[in-house]
Amino acid sequence: MRRVLYLARSRTYQKMTARPARPVFDKEQLDSLLSRRFFVAPGFEIYAGVAGLYDYGPPACALQANIVDQWRKHFVLEEDMLEIDTTIITPAEVLKTSGHVERFADWMCKDPASGEIFRADHLIEQVLEARLKGDKEARGESVHESPDDTKKRKAKVKPLKLDNAVKSEYEQILAKIDGYSGKEMGELIVQYSIRNPVTDKPLEAPQEFNLMFDTSIGPTGAIKGYLRPETAQGQFLNFSRLLEFNNNRMPFASAQIGKSFRNEISPRSGLLRVREFLMAEIEHYVDPETKSHARFNEVKDVKLCFLPKDTQEAGKTDITELTIGQAVEMGIVDNTTLGYFLVRIHQFLVKIGITASKLRFRQHMKNEMAHYACDCWDAELQTSYGWIECVGCADRSAYDLTVHSKKTNRKLVVRENLEQPRVYHEWEGQINKKVLGPKFKKDAKAVEERLLAMTQEEMERASQTGSVSFDINGQTFTLNSEFVTFIKVTRKESVREYTPNVIEPSFGIGRILYSLIEHSYWSRPEDSQRGVLSFPPIIAPIKCLLVPLSGSPEFIPIVKHWAATLRNIGISNKVDDSSANIGRRYARNDELGTPFGITIDFQTVKDKTVTLRERDSTTQIRASEIDICQVLQDLTGGKVTWEQVVQKYGEFQGQSLD
Amino acid sequence: MRRVLYLARSRTYQKMTARPARPVFDKEQLDSLLSRRFFVAPGFEIYAGVAGLYDYGPPACALQANIVDQWRKHFVLEEDMLEIDTTIITPAEVLKTSGHVERFADWMCKDPASGEIFRADHLIEQVLEARLKGDKEARGESVHESPDDTKKRKAKVKPLKLDNAVKSEYEQILAKIDGYSGKEMGELIVQYSIRNPVTDKPLEAPQEFNLMFDTSIGPTGAIKGYLRPETAQGQFLNFSRLLEFNNNRMPFASAQIGKSFRNEISPRSGLLRVREFLMAEIEHYVDPETKSHARFNEVKDVKLCFLPKDTQEAGKTDITELTIGQAVEMGIVDNTTLGYFLVRIHQFLVKIGITASKLRFRQHMKNEMAHYACDCWDAELQTSYGWIECVGCADRSAYDLTVHSKKTNRKLVVRENLEQPRVYHEWEGQINKKVLGPKFKKDAKAVEERLLAMTQEEMERASQTGSVSFDINGQTFTLNSEFVTFIKVTRKESVREYTPNVIEPSFGIGRILYSLIEHSYWSRPEDSQRGVLSFPPIIAPIKCLLVPLSGSPEFIPIVKHWAATLRNIGISNKVDDSSANIGRRYARNDELGTPFGITIDFQTVKDKTVTLRERDSTTQIRASEIDICQVLQDLTGGKVTWEQVVQKYGEFQGQSLD
Repeated sequence: MRRVLYLARSRTYQKMTARPARPVFDKEQLDSLLSRRFFVAPGFEIYAGVAGLYDYGPPACALQANIVDQWRKHFVLEEDMLEIDTTIITPAEVLKTSGHVERFADWMCKDPASGEIFRADHLIEQVLEARLKGDKEARGESVHESPDDTKKRKAKVKPLKLDNAVKSEYEQILAKIDGYSGKEMGELIVQYSIRNPVTDKPLEAPQEFNLMFDTSIGPTGAIKGYLRPETAQGQFLNFSRLLEFNNNRMPFASAQIGKSFRNEISPRSGLLRVREFLMAEIEHYVDPETKSHARFNEVKDVKLCFLPKDTQEAGKTDITELTIGQAVEMGIVDNTTLGYFLVRIHQFLVKIGITASKLRFRQHMKNEMAHYACDCWDAELQTSYGWIECVGCADRSAYDLTVHSKKTNRKLVVRENLEQPRVYHEWEGQINKKVLGPKFKKDAKAVEERLLAMTQEEMERASQTGSVSFDINGQTFTLNSEFVTFIKVTRKESVREYTPNVIEPSFGIGRILYSLIEHSYWSRPEDSQRGVLSFPPIIAPIKCLLVPLSGSPEFIPIVKHWAATLRNIGISNKVDDSSANIGRRYARNDELGTPFGITIDFQTVKDKTVTLRERDSTTQIRASEIDICQVLQDLTGGKVTWEQVVQKYGEFQGQSLD
Repeated sequence: MRRVLYLARSRTYQKMTARPARPVFDKEQLDSLLSRRFFVAPGFEIYAGVAGLYDYGPPACALQANIVDQWRKHFVLEEDMLEIDTTIITPAEVLKTSGHVERFADWMCKDPASGEIFRADHLIEQVLEARLKGDKEARGESVHESPDDTKKRKAKVKPLKLDNAVKSEYEQILAKIDGYSGKEMGELIVQYSIRNPVTDKPLEAPQEFNLMFDTSIGPTGAIKGYLRPETAQGQFLNFSRLLEFNNNRMPFASAQIGKSFRNEISPRSGLLRVREFLMAEIEHYVDPETKSHARFNEVKDVKLCFLPKDTQEAGKTDITELTIGQAVEMGIVDNTTLGYFLVRIHQFLVKIGITASKLRFRQHMKNEMAHYACDCWDAELQTSYGWIECVGCADRSAYDLTVHSKKTNRKLVVRENLEQPRVYHEWEGQINKKVLGPKFKKDAKAVEERLLAMTQEEMERASQTGSVSFDINGQTFTLNSEFVTFIKVTRKESVREYTPNVIEPSFGIGRILYSLIEHSYWSRPEDSQRGVLSFPPIIAPIKCLLVPLSGSPEFIPIVKHWAATLRNIGISNKVDDSSANIGRRYARNDELGTPFGITIDFQTVKDKTVTLRERDSTTQIRASEIDICQVLQDLTGGKVTWEQVVQKYGEFQGQSLD
């Protein structure tokens, strides 16, 4: 359809150019950039803010929209998923059934002196780790920072040697920290004298705190509701409608992108632990007997980095690199659907610019799984906060559909027409109501109910002995063949009815966005103050900067023309016609991650050519409008690399811009 | 860049073909379609639902995403607006300042017998209108349905003649219904014996009910919060950051797309009055001295339909059709910025498929304006529920920025460097503290404060009389030149500091979506059961249907190839390879609003050509893959009409598909 300009086309994004080696990551400088350029601001900043609530300014908002757009293309469109949009406000009854009202909670400890509140597991972890560090220091061993310090606030470390036995106890507790009950944590706090790490004041026993925000619906306040903690429940409740929409074909997936809410006890990890966040969730419904994925073969040779639960339970963090085909074959990954999605998650993250070497798949240990999951792999991204869970890929089995179905008495099942009807035999009881009623009178109903509840084994036994006995409310009833007879009948089923299992890839868009920013950030070796965000063109907030060389009036209509032209071909652009010199203007837009820049200069006025600059290499080409437009479409569409462009057009060195 | 296939290109969407005259709109049939094809379902349907909460299934979810995408292109990208994403959860303090805690409320009446709750204004309206209808019937006049019955539940009408005076009182009350206080409504209810319209039981006096959902933030419950009732506040609070991001240039606009929440008292109008809804809001900041828009000239000749407040206050609903240039000149529309946005709103709505003749701009009357607005125009769309407010375009003046600034002591202003410094003279008081203190002792501070608060007029008078007198707490103080002297000084200002005014176009996406569905719905004259949704291609949920003529295996790879090819060029598509006949499959997809369909038949196997069918006309063309792809891109991009396509390729009549 479109003329092909280049010999090679790369389907996925490739780093545009070999970047200079990056200096050490400077978190403070990045934070300053993110605030200064209004990527992000504390929510309600002029009202002194509220912990765990953040606003996205224009660059992060566009970045988020582009990530979501890619997500939709990569998952929903590519796999024909059924995207829906269900409400945030959820009546309590739904979340009671799903188990969230009872179990979606953390344990917290209050310092009665200061009123400060700690999340119990984080507190124990923090204090014991500080003591272990102090021990190491006292023993003269080298102390290095654990990368996994996401959840902890640093407490002061006192060099103090521990008993070897105590040291080993601490280590065991830390390995199992995600698996303790509230009561157990309370005992640990007493046993190991765990106190407020800053003031050393004693704390109250752990109390459970449900993480859902509650509200009430309607004017009478009679309907209690919550803000959803995940988008999944809205999908499960619509299962029957979704299946019908899919012409009753299995397997299939629904998807939803939307805000979810968790009332974190004391959020402290910046953008990584927030109370309101955008999720993108897929619920893929499979036949529990196979859990196989038709497209697994397409991805089976993709290599991933695994951290299986066995490794962790042995107290290790060594990565196993395997193809997904091997991992499924070895039983590390349970089935091909789970395997397929792990690869698709990997491909998505790398496509939007995540550094592949900073991505691993960690399996949940038995004791840390959410109440609804029977297996779970997290895509974790390495950041300055440690390895962060950014995507969860859980096998929720038939849990949710089963509990909602039971509660509402509505079938949430698949009916499959069997090619070969299934023939089987089973016992059936035939009750003689005419004699049962008069004999048992007021107990007749209870007796009948008990008979109807008999298992196959009970009926078989009764048919052999000729009678059946049972107790109801302490009274024994014995019934012979006068009241009930048992016969073996042959049944034929031409429809198989089953509750599908659910594989759920669940994306925390905000965490991915923040990790991506960290992975994309570097500063020019010649000037550490000049930060660059090397977002891939497909997700960069703005694709192209337009800079007139100076304030000369002849540039004004040309800039206007270019802005409209680029907009028409779908290239988002921004004009920077401020009076700063051109190098300064480019530097400012490197901070926003704008991958390309067009300079309009005096030669443009003469021959309509412009220069196009690439952000990471700062190299330029010069070409006509028609060529530059095509190049930009191909670059932002991921169809060509900057090297290929430079090879074709030659590097332009007429101006010095940096 | 792309080869131009056609002579004429239409920039905006045009109806693709002359449709047959539509039969009478059948609401019940449409509702059935919307449920059956899972456009929409009551939220938590299997739990018996919650009033005012709805889920969007795949077609409505895609429709919504496409409307939002067009909105972003039409407003944010076209006008370089700064889109941001702020949190839904909002601390109470912010909404106290904005006036929502005190004033964002409706009045409700409870029926103590049934527990049923009525919105007071809707109740009065409903009962009085029913009585007026009864009067008309009794007088033998023809009774026709008011189109404005959005908010009312039908009550039974008893034919009963009213006194002429009473009738006129009722009519006056109805005209002013949006302007009564709770107390006044309570008096009306007593005076006119307004009762539960179904049971005729008496009601309790109106009570105020705040429409915001509340919650609490953090584990202590100390921070009270609300779910935002509008996205605007998050934009205002970030004003200073936004202005800086815009290089301190004025005017500019911020924008936000996101969910808002209103705890409606008793929502009963389907998708038009819901408790959770998607909004898209623009806050355009202007200099209060001009409120002019630089691009107004581009739109000044566009004609719009106006219903100004003067017309309504005279009890009329006649439409005034004027160009926006005339409307501004005549003072009907206050300023060119407001005028510019009315046109842009009109253009957006028509572009996505709203019927222009069912769109009017109604100005708010003084008594119905929101507490923050000084002028407001609603874009109203005509639906089976009457004329519905779908977009508000309010002049919020400096209200919000002023109140937040006062509350937080943070300046939310623009500083403009004046080319010509402003020179002016003013009176200044010089206080002799050395004598003031000893003389007035404990009152000295109060006296000094009073002096500092003197106006220019007071100072001028004092300078003439030589002394100044005032009362503080009942005591009179007189000060002569020994204590204070007044002189006239010359000041020079090179910076003008002002609080910008805000023009706010605010879109209810769900209401637009529903109205659009009504405007797009019709059924084939030959079969009233065959519904069609004629969405314009740019916003249709799925652009192209792929149908193999039969289940013949040779079609399978071709269908797969086409699905991938269309996906690659960004044309969302859906395969229908069910066993239904091809006409039935097209009919099913007409219900989803899919504008185009490709049929793969035996000729395709031979020569790779396919047929392309257009939904509204059901006509077809036949062409090669490369041509069909280009045609689809041009059609879905709004670059060409179906008539032009048929003209170029000729109508294909080889198969009978319908």
